[in-house]
Formats: sequence, C-alpha cells, structure tokens
Amino acid sequence: MTASLPAEPGHAEGAPGDGRRQPSFQEMWRELAPLGRDSGSGGYRRYAWTAADADCRAWFRAQAEARGLAYELDRNGNQWAWLGDPLAGDAVVTGSHLDSVPDGGAFDGPLGVVSSFAALDELRRRGARFSRPLALTNFGDEEGARFGLACVGSRLTAGQLTAEQAHELRDGDGITLPRAMEAAGCDPSTLGPDPERLARIGAFIELHVEQGRALDLSGDPVGIASAIWPHGRWRFDFRGEANHAGTTRLTDRRDPMLTYAETVLAARREAELAGALATFGKISVEPNGVNAIPSLVRGWLDSRAADQSALDTVVAGIEAAARACADRAGIELSVVRESFTPVVEFEHALRDELGKILGQRPGGAAPVPVLGTGAGHDAGILSGSIPTAMLFVRNPTGVSHSPAEYAAEDDCVAGVLALADVLEGLACA
Amino acid sequence: MTASLPAEPGHAEGAPGDGRRQPSFQEMWRELAPLGRDSGSGGYRRYAWTAADADCRAWFRAQAEARGLAYELDRNGNQWAWLGDPLAGDAVVTGSHLDSVPDGGAFDGPLGVVSSFAALDELRRRGARFSRPLALTNFGDEEGARFGLACVGSRLTAGQLTAEQAHELRDGDGITLPRAMEAAGCDPSTLGPDPERLARIGAFIELHVEQGRALDLSGDPVGIASAIWPHGRWRFDFRGEANHAGTTRLTDRRDPMLTYAETVLAARREAELAGALATFGKISVEPNGVNAIPSLVRGWLDSRAADQSALDTVVAGIEAAARACADRAGIELSVVRESFTPVVEFEHALRDELGKILGQRPGGAAPVPVLGTGAGHDAGILSGSIPTAMLFVRNPTGVSHSPAEYAAEDDCVAGVLALADVLEGLACA
Repeated sequence: MTASLPAEPGHAEGAPGDGRRQPSFQEMWRELAPLGRDSGSGGYRRYAWTAADADCRAWFRAQAEARGLAYELDRNGNQWAWLGDPLAGDAVVTGSHLDSVPDGGAFDGPLGVVSSFAALDELRRRGARFSRPLALTNFGDEEGARFGLACVGSRLTAGQLTAEQAHELRDGDGITLPRAMEAAGCDPSTLGPDPERLARIGAFIELHVEQGRALDLSGDPVGIASAIWPHGRWRFDFRGEANHAGTTRLTDRRDPMLTYAETVLAARREAELAGALATFGKISVEPNGVNAIPSLVRGWLDSRAADQSALDTVVAGIEAAARACADRAGIELSVVRESFTPVVEFEHALRDELGKILGQRPGGAAPVPVLGTGAGHDAGILSGSIPTAMLFVRNPTGVSHSPAEYAAEDDCVAGVLALADVLEGLACA
Repeated sequence: MTASLPAEPGHAEGAPGDGRRQPSFQEMWRELAPLGRDSGSGGYRRYAWTAADADCRAWFRAQAEARGLAYELDRNGNQWAWLGDPLAGDAVVTGSHLDSVPDGGAFDGPLGVVSSFAALDELRRRGARFSRPLALTNFGDEEGARFGLACVGSRLTAGQLTAEQAHELRDGDGITLPRAMEAAGCDPSTLGPDPERLARIGAFIELHVEQGRALDLSGDPVGIASAIWPHGRWRFDFRGEANHAGTTRLTDRRDPMLTYAETVLAARREAELAGALATFGKISVEPNGVNAIPSLVRGWLDSRAADQSALDTVVAGIEAAARACADRAGIELSVVRESFTPVVEFEHALRDELGKILGQRPGGAAPVPVLGTGAGHDAGILSGSIPTAMLFVRNPTGVSHSPAEYAAEDDCVAGVLALADVLEGLACA
C-alpha cells in the first residue's frame, strides 16, 4: 500500500464521530476478508439474506457508526450512512454492494463500499466542507446469486421490480425472498418503489473493480464508465431421443448433445465476427447418464455487445446456426429469451464533470479513459431515475467472478483518491 | 397377444404347485406395470434396495411360490426359484433382472424374468419331464443406477467384485450398499464370491429385449447373442479459467466449454470412421452459471466397438483430437479410464446348441440370426465362470433405457416359446 492514505487507525481530523475507532483502509479489508469466505475454494459466498450477508451488513453499520454517520436501512433492504441532512435534497451518494456470486472474488462490490468510507476519511483529513448531503450505500442482492435476479435492491427502489414480483422470487431450496428476509430479521412488507428517496439524490457514483482488461491495456489505474452494453440471457432447449449409448446405431440416433456442441462453437464464431461476447456457461442434461444418449440438453447463452444492432446480429446468427444443425439432426429446438437489459448510457453531463475533475488534478493532465462495460450494476439500474456515473479501478488480469479476481493495492488507493476528488468536486464548497 | 399362450390364469397341467393361483403371462405384466413407475416421466425407477426394488422382489417370490418352486435368496441378494434339487448339479438356469435405469422402460430386465416363468408354465403344459434341475433368477442391481456399478449381484457371485469393494459403494446421498441392504431387511455380512453355487450350474440362458435394431432390420422376432462388445467409460476433465462472461474479451478467455464441444464432435467423427459407438451423455460444469465462463467442464465418454482394436482406435482418436484442441485453447486436459470390460464371447458350444434347437423347430428352418451387442449383462459377467448364452427379442424402434422402449406382444410370445424350446432341449429328457 502506498503512503497516500494513513496506514494506522484513528480519528481523522474534523471527524464528527462519537469517539469510536475508525478502521483504516487496510483494517476495513482485514475485517471483511474472512466474512463468507469458503475455505475450500477460497472464494466468497455472500448470498442475500444469509448469515454471511448479515455479517457484511453488520460490518457496514459498524463502519457508519464509527464515523458518526446516520445509519438507515431502507424499505428494500439497502443500507445507507448519511453525513448531513438526508431530507435536504440534492444528495451525493456513493457505494456499491457487499454480496457476491458463488465463489466470487474479494473486490467485486466491496471495493466500492470500502472506497466510499476511505474517501470520506480522506476528505475529512483534507478538512473538506460539505455543501450537499453525502450518503454511502450498500445495495442489497446485487449479484442475484440466491434468487436468480440481479440488482434486486436497486430494481425495487427504482420501480423496475414490483413488490408482487419480488414476493415470488425463490431460491434453489424453494424459500421465497420474503421468508428469507424475515429469517434475517428484516421486514419484507415494505418492499416497493421509493421515488421520494430517489428525488432527494442529485448524483450516484459507483466505484467498481474493472471486469475486463481495458485499463490494463491503456496503462491507467482509474477510468470512467461510458455505458453498459445491452445484454441478455437466452435458453436453448435441444430435444432429441433418450436411448442406450451402447446399442443404438449412430444413424438411428437423435442426440441433442451434438447439436448443442455445434451451437457452442457457432456462438464463438458469431461473436468473433461481430466483435461481441457470447458464452454458454450453464448446461442441464437429461437424464445425464454415462450410458444414455440425452433426451434433452438445455444450454444458456449469455450475449452482450456494444450496441443493440450488433447484439441482435450475434444472437440471430447463433440461433440460425443452431436451427440449421437441429433440422439436420432431427432435434427439436426452442429458444426463449429469459432476460434482457437494453444499453445504459451514463448521463453525459455527470460523466463529463467527472472527467473534468479528474483531468484537472495535479499530475492529472492526461485525460482519464472512458470505457464501456458488459457487466450490469446498480448504477445501471438507477441511471433510469437519477444521474449516475461509475469509476473503474484497473484489474491487471481482467479476471472477475472468481477467487483469482485481483486489483493491486496502489490501484485501489488511486481509486480512493479519485473518488475523494470526485466527491469533493461535487459535494464540497 | 397371440393365442400361443393361454390368456387366462389357472393351473398348468402337471404343475406341482401348492394350489395357489399361477398368474398368466399377461397377468404377470399387469402386476409388474405399476411397480416403481414414475407418473411424471412414465419411466421406471427401480433402484437397488429401494421400496420399488422390494416390491419387485416380493413379486418374484410370489411367482415362485405360486408355482411350487423352492425360493432362495443367495448371499449376494440374487433371487432364485428352483425346480428339482438345487444340489444335484448341472442345473439349467434362466432369468434376468428387475431393476431399472433412471426412467427406464418396461422390458429391459423384466422381459427375461417374466419370460422365464412363462416358459416354465409352457413346458408344464407340454408335459415336459425335466432331467436336470431348473432355476429361475432375478439378479440384484444389474443396472447400477444407485451405486454407480452395474451387475453388482453377478459380479459378487463370480468374484469379479470383492466384498470389501462392495462395502465401499455409495449412492448419491452417501448411503453405503451395506446400509441400504440392511434398510431393506437383507444381511450384507454374507456378500462375497459364491463358487459352489456356480459349480452347480451347467448353463445360464438370459433372454433380453434387443437394445438395437438388428432384428428389426433382419425381420426376425428372436436372435441369439454372439458376443458383448468391449466397452468402457472415460472421464475427460477440461480445466480453463473461471471468468465473467460479460466482460472478458474473447481473446483473453480460456473457456473449457469450447474444447468440450470440439471433443463431442470429434467423438462422433471418430466413431463413424471406425464403425463403432462413442457418446458424451453426462456432463458436469463448474460453476455452471449463466454469466460465468466455466473453470471446469467434465464430460464422460462411453465408447464400444466390435473388437478391441477398433475400440482402441476410436478412443485414441478422440483423445488426440481433444488434446490438440485443448493445447490450442490453453485448456488443461486429463483423461481417466473409469471402467472397462473386454470383449465377451459367449460359449460357442452352447450358442451352437441353441441355434440347432431353434433351427429344428417346425417352421424354424431358417437359421436364427446371431448378433453382437454393445450392452453389458449379467450373462456377460457370468460367462467367465460358466457356459452362458443369450436370446434377444426384437425391438422395433431400437429405443432402450427410455420409457419409449418397446417390444410387440407377438414378439414377446415368440421369445417365451423360443426360451421354452431351449429349456426343453437342454433340461428335459
């Protein structure tokens, strides 16, 4: 870690804390490190409304209280820590999420939350005077690992998911979201849109570890998001005929695994042609026996592209290739779009303001790179309601959603300082 | 059903029964039909030592007792029904199994057991006089659906599976074979080789529904087995790098699903070239998430060929293709042979005797076809210890290990009459 942030815990100057100890940047990471970590995989399993999630939430609340911030749990299970009057309006909000995908890495989500607290500490050290209310947030269930839908907390708040729809969400054991919330001691009866809260927010900034290698390739520690690519999930059901693998002649077979395999390779070809992304990462096979030709192979396509037209081209190309192979092999194919998110362009005015703030810093003469991303975020959900922007921190390997996900300590510190500069530029007199 | 067998239940002439009712061929099928049948799939789930298996075993015992046969459960959980002195030696034995694969059909196994009882009834009607002991059998756990190893009952008896190995078998819930046997009221402490029993058997004949379409193509209702092809199972582990499907550039990926797909298609090509069979019917993916590039794709290859040289060629070709694709894509590949059974040639003398008996029948001037099969059977296991032979009954679709498995009633009756003729030729004065 560089010397740019104090390594030892203690009171920052000007902090209106209640005398409790404020953990340093390093201490915050040490406290979070063991929560929800699987000793076998080394990855995190912080799923919504589980014990690991409760540990993370308790950590967030303790951080807020150690800094004298007003803690609040909103109607949709999102956590808030306020500096200044929450009701004054035009608040600047920053934060991310603490939950994880199955066996996720340490940075996806927590980097944005930890950096929010550290950026506030840095601003207090600078003696910054706030002219707008500031809030730090932990949005609930961003990854959707348990109930299958991402960004539940922000979707509910923005009215993109109704209370009725949320009540129907079930995890793999059949437990509904309301039952899971109750088990975690949280009231599910208040779930629903929260336009009054959104009306009091002037800007939301989410800092996130980059999930690709654009910053690594450009040689920059920090970047600004331009847009989230349009993306969706399609389920391909290939239906053939179950039969004995040891006795059925090749010419008598209707084996859907062959058509699936051809489709997986077609997806890669089509994505390469269009400069887009296409992945078959999830599969389900029936009966899934070593000596059984499958009756059903179900594969899920995840596809994303920089614009809608490229995405349409890729998915249409994959489906056409799959249909041609299926017809030749006597396989029935059905394709269902299970989810879709159109392109999210972050607000240009806010994005330009961030670029200006970061470009004007001493030694910051080089423009900060502006880059698109294929991943969804709470900032993408909220961008339909309020001005939002994102900062990315360099990921030298690009690895994401994996225990091997990584960001260098110097880059994490650069992210904190960039976020502090942005908050100072937006919220301080 | 044809009129060749009496449709109504009753005492067959000459039957030494104890006065209990002997179900007819049709009645036996009606009694078996509901046992272990899944109402959703319409297939059978008769797994070893489950309630469905117990129902089937109770049915077998009732059939034996209704015909005045001496019922016996052997030390390995196989059921026997004796006519004549079990200790006299040189016995003729016929039977098959009653358990099933997951969602299996009605005929695979039960056709051989039902036909054994029906053939005995037919011989009694004919007034046949037996010069050798006759036994009907139901071998335990032939399909291996629960504990992962096929032909457990006959393997133990033949000494091809030790008691120690059998004690280590576990089902998907971690329940060991001994615990499962105990739960079913059966003593597992006696498991082990049974050479004395085998020494008292002069011939074992297993009748089975064909699992391919050879008889359908040749136009014959019944055939004789020549050999069981050599066959084996190989596990292919393709290891890549878990990553975010929405953010990782195609060129940065090490996606094992692509190499798996190429290998599935290579398996089909190699099998076509060699006139053999190769199937990837089972797969396991980690983490198996829609938006995750997999870290591991594990696929199981089932391959079979008419001779060892062809099988070696096919498997070597598939592995070479997989390695070439893996090397290009930065994927680690390991290939493990999980099981292997060399070619089984059924005893030529017994096979020729069956051909002679069936060829000499009135109207049976045309030779009965002799055909190989890719499927394993208890008869294949026992062929290493005693003379064994198999009869196949036509399967008009070739479909097997599926609820759609089928044999026409006329062909089933032809099978019973052929088996009766064989037993008469071998065991009667």
